[in-house]
Amino acid sequence: MEQSLRDKLQEMGKLAKKASRTLANISSEEKNLILAKIKESLKDNKTYILEENKKDMEKAKKELMAQGLLDRLLLNEARIDSMILSVDKIISLDDPVGRMFDFRTLENGLIIGKKTVPIGVLAMIYEARPNVSLDGSILAIKSSNSIILRCGKEAINSCTALVKVIRSGIEKAGFDKNMVQIINDTTRQSSIELMKLKGYVDLLIPRGSKGLINSVVENAKVPVLETGVGNCHLYVDKDYDLDKALRIFENGKTQRIGVCNALESLLVHKDVKDDFYDGLNKLIGKYKLKVHACERSIKKIPGAIKARDEDYGKEYLAYEFSIKIVDSLEEAIDHIYQYSSHHSDAIITENIESAQKFINQVDSACVYVNASTRFTDGQEFGYGAEIGISTQKLHARGPVGLNELTTYKYIVLGQGQVRK
Amino acid sequence: MEQSLRDKLQEMGKLAKKASRTLANISSEEKNLILAKIKESLKDNKTYILEENKKDMEKAKKELMAQGLLDRLLLNEARIDSMILSVDKIISLDDPVGRMFDFRTLENGLIIGKKTVPIGVLAMIYEARPNVSLDGSILAIKSSNSIILRCGKEAINSCTALVKVIRSGIEKAGFDKNMVQIINDTTRQSSIELMKLKGYVDLLIPRGSKGLINSVVENAKVPVLETGVGNCHLYVDKDYDLDKALRIFENGKTQRIGVCNALESLLVHKDVKDDFYDGLNKLIGKYKLKVHACERSIKKIPGAIKARDEDYGKEYLAYEFSIKIVDSLEEAIDHIYQYSSHHSDAIITENIESAQKFINQVDSACVYVNASTRFTDGQEFGYGAEIGISTQKLHARGPVGLNELTTYKYIVLGQGQVRK
Repeated sequence: MEQSLRDKLQEMGKLAKKASRTLANISSEEKNLILAKIKESLKDNKTYILEENKKDMEKAKKELMAQGLLDRLLLNEARIDSMILSVDKIISLDDPVGRMFDFRTLENGLIIGKKTVPIGVLAMIYEARPNVSLDGSILAIKSSNSIILRCGKEAINSCTALVKVIRSGIEKAGFDKNMVQIINDTTRQSSIELMKLKGYVDLLIPRGSKGLINSVVENAKVPVLETGVGNCHLYVDKDYDLDKALRIFENGKTQRIGVCNALESLLVHKDVKDDFYDGLNKLIGKYKLKVHACERSIKKIPGAIKARDEDYGKEYLAYEFSIKIVDSLEEAIDHIYQYSSHHSDAIITENIESAQKFINQVDSACVYVNASTRFTDGQEFGYGAEIGISTQKLHARGPVGLNELTTYKYIVLGQGQVRK
Repeated sequence: MEQSLRDKLQEMGKLAKKASRTLANISSEEKNLILAKIKESLKDNKTYILEENKKDMEKAKKELMAQGLLDRLLLNEARIDSMILSVDKIISLDDPVGRMFDFRTLENGLIIGKKTVPIGVLAMIYEARPNVSLDGSILAIKSSNSIILRCGKEAINSCTALVKVIRSGIEKAGFDKNMVQIINDTTRQSSIELMKLKGYVDLLIPRGSKGLINSVVENAKVPVLETGVGNCHLYVDKDYDLDKALRIFENGKTQRIGVCNALESLLVHKDVKDDFYDGLNKLIGKYKLKVHACERSIKKIPGAIKARDEDYGKEYLAYEFSIKIVDSLEEAIDHIYQYSSHHSDAIITENIESAQKFINQVDSACVYVNASTRFTDGQEFGYGAEIGISTQKLHARGPVGLNELTTYKYIVLGQGQVRK
């Protein structure tokens, strides 16, 4: 049984490799044709997709899935329309593959430069969000990578239906449908085997909970792009603008709580005045925020509870945050160094020196001055789309868009040169 | 015992992290001062280094180490002078850290861009080449990374001496000597523990034999940069220039046999004429090359032996190569796709279409037209120095120089913007 699952995945790996070679050698126009056919296929199969999604939804309700998760699982006409729009958006973006750059002539006459090329075979392990099936597929195709999808059992009917529809679109465009495949096995074992598909999977991207991501990072034998855990900080410096501080705190903490770029921790310089705490307490009341406060800040926030050390390391993803009063910018930077997940951290300051020090010394994928961490997003950064936010240092940091799904090769053009 | 080794490595990890924070925040001038003091320290301690190297050499001779390895282990006055020159070279290169790029203003007024930053803590596992201790250390310092070294037992006295000398230079410059550390334990266990030093090691670079590299890729829990295995191909197209073909084959196969960018396999179009084989046979005679030939080519090469399938996948690192006659450029590309280690592959052709097809479809770190694969080297590519040749697709491909030892962070400058 286990062996046959491994065989099956290796077979999928081979098909994905083959399709990736096709993809690496077709034109931008051909890729956009495939995407256009996928769009048509989505339009033509709305009813089918919705019916399959209904099966997942009914099962999930029976199993008392939490409201937030149910909402992520749900597809409806409007959401499929928005998926269709997202295909259009990807079509409109520049082809990230085939860009030649850094060309120069060496003293010996060799012409040398780089060309962007696809990574090869991508794989994604995700949970109960059907739209990830489409996002992953169209980003992969546009960047000339094939992709193997492995969704959570809660979304298997929806995702299988979507992939069927996507593959039918690819076939209608006259290309190899195996550029997109989904594993129709949602046991833990299929996930483990995918993580070990060395020689076939060039990059594995886990999307979902911290537990899922840690398990992939821990067990994978194939290269992994670590995404998404965000313990984001806002530090209010002594030279703060009150309005900016409160507005950015409110936006970061409350505009959308379940996302990785939401604020989880507030650091406040000891000289920050009571007007800030007055405003903060109003927001705490307005959103019924649960507060984990240090010994000094607890006195300023009625209803706050005493923060334990581990509370500063938490990604709450809830109407909840930790707060600490610090003696200096340096203490804030040290605290962030220790507790941040190195995703996005922000300073509120009118002082140019503080801003520069924060920018230079905070070692996170995105470092903000006087703006909300909620902007860490491929769309907001102007990349059109993203497959996740990288919190690792290798290959890509921050939003992973089409460019980050490519690599490069060196091209060396000679006239018979040999090495001396 | 095992626990205490783990504790010791974690302690080294902590010291390396601390030193990396210092390094991330010092100026180019300060880094060059450190390098200058390392240079002085090398000059002042030649005798000590040579004495310690003598211990390794005597032990190695007693244990009957092969001549090639002995030569790699040996230090002498001239080699230390050349090490000193290499420090000068690194001093003269541009600082790869702190470069701001891709800055632009979004519609909402946010200014966003990237800044190059160090990776953090590097680690290297290598075998019996003392000079790697110095190369790794000075490349790490110049790119603001700290480094933990783990050398093979054959070179432990030489490497420990070199690291002592390097650390004394760092101290004389007034900085934290823990930016360079060496593990004084050469058991297999110390290597395994280093591969698992998660949270401390940001990038592990194995340098050495295929066995070492595979073991690191297989066992590491920290991010790895896969380097160096090179099964490099030369394909002689039907429209070939005889002189270029023979000259580049000779250079690739024989100029230096023990290196990853040496040629290991020759593919020849079926229409290539006998003049090529005449020249090839002369070279085979001149260098006493052992030839593994396909059914067709064996008839043209007296003394060749029949190639088995696995002979095409081998990195010989010897006066030995495999040869195959192919029916077409496409067959050559397919063969390379199957057998290449995706390091460096070359075509000999006067035909622009063949050149373009080869460039586009061969998926290797470096793709050559009419030039020797021996050029794949940081020095030759004009980067001044390298820590190895990456054969993986993520992060960096080809020569890994100072730029590839950095990553980037996004900097976002706002005036109070929040997300809608």
